Amino acid sequence: MSTPLYRVVEVELTGTREPLHADRAPVRALFTHESGTNVEVPGFWDGADRYLVRFAPEVEGRWTWRTVSEVAELDGVEGAFEAAGAEGHGPVRVAEQFHFAHADGTPFRPVGTTAYNWLHQEEPLFSETPDAIAEAGFNKFRFMVFPQAGGHIEHFPTLLPFEKDAEGGWDVSRPVIPFFRRLDLAVQLLAERGVQADVLIFNSYDGGHFGLDGLTEDEDAAYLRYLVARLSAYANVWWSLCNEFDILTDRPAARWDCAGELLAAMDPHDHLRSIHNWMEIHDQNRPWITHASIQNGAATTEFGRASLYRDVYRKPIVLDEIKYEGDIADRWGHLSGDQLVHQFWITTVAGCYASHGESFTLPNGSLHMVQGGPFRGESPARLGFLRTVLDDLVVAGLDPIDKWDDPEYVAGAPRRQYLAYLGQSAPAEWTFRLPQGNKGERLEVGDSFVVDVVDTWAMTVTRVAGEFVLTEVHRNEAFAADADPVSLPEGRPLALRITRTDLSAR
Amino acid sequence: MSTPLYRVVEVELTGTREPLHADRAPVRALFTHESGTNVEVPGFWDGADRYLVRFAPEVEGRWTWRTVSEVAELDGVEGAFEAAGAEGHGPVRVAEQFHFAHADGTPFRPVGTTAYNWLHQEEPLFSETPDAIAEAGFNKFRFMVFPQAGGHIEHFPTLLPFEKDAEGGWDVSRPVIPFFRRLDLAVQLLAERGVQADVLIFNSYDGGHFGLDGLTEDEDAAYLRYLVARLSAYANVWWSLCNEFDILTDRPAARWDCAGELLAAMDPHDHLRSIHNWMEIHDQNRPWITHASIQNGAATTEFGRASLYRDVYRKPIVLDEIKYEGDIADRWGHLSGDQLVHQFWITTVAGCYASHGESFTLPNGSLHMVQGGPFRGESPARLGFLRTVLDDLVVAGLDPIDKWDDPEYVAGAPRRQYLAYLGQSAPAEWTFRLPQGNKGERLEVGDSFVVDVVDTWAMTVTRVAGEFVLTEVHRNEAFAADADPVSLPEGRPLALRITRTDLSAR
Repeated sequence: MSTPLYRVVEVELTGTREPLHADRAPVRALFTHESGTNVEVPGFWDGADRYLVRFAPEVEGRWTWRTVSEVAELDGVEGAFEAAGAEGHGPVRVAEQFHFAHADGTPFRPVGTTAYNWLHQEEPLFSETPDAIAEAGFNKFRFMVFPQAGGHIEHFPTLLPFEKDAEGGWDVSRPVIPFFRRLDLAVQLLAERGVQADVLIFNSYDGGHFGLDGLTEDEDAAYLRYLVARLSAYANVWWSLCNEFDILTDRPAARWDCAGELLAAMDPHDHLRSIHNWMEIHDQNRPWITHASIQNGAATTEFGRASLYRDVYRKPIVLDEIKYEGDIADRWGHLSGDQLVHQFWITTVAGCYASHGESFTLPNGSLHMVQGGPFRGESPARLGFLRTVLDDLVVAGLDPIDKWDDPEYVAGAPRRQYLAYLGQSAPAEWTFRLPQGNKGERLEVGDSFVVDVVDTWAMTVTRVAGEFVLTEVHRNEAFAADADPVSLPEGRPLALRITRTDLSAR
Repeated sequence: MSTPLYRVVEVELTGTREPLHADRAPVRALFTHESGTNVEVPGFWDGADRYLVRFAPEVEGRWTWRTVSEVAELDGVEGAFEAAGAEGHGPVRVAEQFHFAHADGTPFRPVGTTAYNWLHQEEPLFSETPDAIAEAGFNKFRFMVFPQAGGHIEHFPTLLPFEKDAEGGWDVSRPVIPFFRRLDLAVQLLAERGVQADVLIFNSYDGGHFGLDGLTEDEDAAYLRYLVARLSAYANVWWSLCNEFDILTDRPAARWDCAGELLAAMDPHDHLRSIHNWMEIHDQNRPWITHASIQNGAATTEFGRASLYRDVYRKPIVLDEIKYEGDIADRWGHLSGDQLVHQFWITTVAGCYASHGESFTLPNGSLHMVQGGPFRGESPARLGFLRTVLDDLVVAGLDPIDKWDDPEYVAGAPRRQYLAYLGQSAPAEWTFRLPQGNKGERLEVGDSFVVDVVDTWAMTVTRVAGEFVLTEVHRNEAFAADADPVSLPEGRPLALRITRTDLSAR
């Protein structure tokens, strides 16, 4: 038996049903690679007498495994398999401090979207949504495990995560298997389309409707253990502890850190972990947090803001809510398509990443950012285009070059490749100039570059004729004084991609 | 014997000279208030056979004290005094999360300046500088204990902090008393003029010239203990661990945290503590750090940047280097006066504080921000004016009202007082509008305000006739629709002070 790297290996076990516990999994399996490396993987109950342990190998070679459990039937079961080849690129993790890459080293640049309550929709909405996301070109998707209540919620699911106890409260020790199998399917549907599943574990929009925001800390832990055991082996999982966590004003910061630390400790596949805010940002310097997931309506409306988050957190920054393209009255939900695209490009040259969402009023009174479905806005196609520009980079990620004196808003990797965003209305011409930063390789006279003009709305990339050879290199900037100014289509929303000639084979 | 609160009580002891130790003070005194509260205060050697313990009481009533030392002569000495009345307002500490207040509750709004190498200048420069600072209206002053080397340094002192050992290295166990007495004097000169002494304990500008950047961690600790014992009782002391700490690339972050934690643990008067960066910001969430002291050349050049630091650090933010007013070629040293004043006002409505510095080339080749002396620039008078505007506030500090949707850049305290900065070129008129924030009291129809037009350059405050009564209050903003627009002197650098009528007695 041989299995490719990053594909789920599922060990099926048979045993008596046990309630979930806050402090342990019902069964664990120790997966041992031929090199001696061990990975301990929690298992979970999957209905009736069925238990599963899911593991996705990241190293080729022979793996053996053996289970440990207090339940005799689940204890001491053994097996082995061979891992060879690969299916996809593996889980996304932090790379080069401010960026992301898959387990196999392939860079990953998130261009995400959002439909919080998607999991809880009926067909055809449920199945249509991953197709729409993939078609637009988004590669990350935020959605919630628990259903939400509140404004714009037009559908209340009957399939819920736990059974009820005798008093009508949640019995978190008894998960509802069809609910979690549907969650598996949701993650798989996204995986098949190359989309990262940014799973929102808790939510702050219950408002007492379902009562899932009223669990105790022990119940939270039992749920967390179950969720991680169930989903962790899927390569495309990201964990987001909560959306707008600070709406839940009765939970102290320590409770979130405790849950986050548990998540970090027990996830055998070490997926990305974040916590997303409303008005108050959680301390993103906490070690359990892999990247800052931030809401701020104004951080991406002007240059020079979002990059400050990089300096203070020294982790990747994902602006996971920068308002939505739509037509509702609330100020968070009526951006024009071009404004949202503009904000994504500002985010890009700030060395950060952003997420999209759509809030046109739908016939049923709901919004895309709630329920999913086909997109109506003008931004998704342009954000798909942005993603292709990012995927074509010859560097892993873009860092602000001259972060504290940035008149031209140029990001990139020094002396290799740069992206300069000229804003929503470009000038008629541009004179070649590169900032000289304080980090990395320094520009030298004779360095040669090619320039591509990127129309962020028309979705075109046009190579400028000729090469630009540096003739003057000063302490903070460099010029190609022999080159003519580049003529630009004045008034267009443009970016410039500037690549060292010898790196620009494509 | 009676002494006012906040004044230094000096206990003089006689004992054999002992070398300094990294792990302890030569003598400590336990000061016990009649209520039973204890404060343990380290003492220090002051030359020959003289030891001192300095303490400034912050509670009225009877205090007794008793010394503890391994040196028999210094051990078990006792005394008592009565504290009554007050001298000044006491040490400045953090207040209302993002602001500052003296120990007696009086708000303190820092408007600081800088002359790093001032302590090491000859007369008359040394004595002239505190006068010039006070005359301009600055209330905080950054200067270094250790001398600096490098560009623009035209004077190298011979009075240095430690004796040399037999090999020509520093013997940190043997402080040079005249050096430290001069440091006492420096702090006192500032105190007498109402100026906070922001003492830069270590510096990154030695470059091997003096070798004071080459001390071991133990030597650092011995020096730190000596410095704190010597200066802590002065009410106007602030501690800054280092300026541009990250220039010293060989020091890991943990070393700074270790020194900062020692500082926090041993300072009996609990002064403010910070660490100032060059390009990489130290983790300002560390508990030992009381406020973020940040250098960033661009954070205050546009609206909406500096306030992001508040959100992430949840402490007072002091932009302790935002470039200098001057005429040198380096881009950090040739701001115009009006640009620097503009940046201070941007900082103010971001709910932060800033420091000034001046870098006109002086006849001797040095700069004011190095050596001190009289100011030449146009900004100091305007910053003194800003300070009077801040001191006239009826609220403790200004917080951005609508931080993530801030089109009008209004800071203040909801429903009490607001300051709106209109930038360097005001429009011809302004229509009364206030943002409704997410925190604090909400505006209501009928709320009445008065408006003052503040010319930030001409240094005038002009009350607009009449009152502005709210007629429309929406979710995010409120209007006084019955009031005429306010005519403004178009093109001037203006701010508006908006105060609820019943709070505006002055």
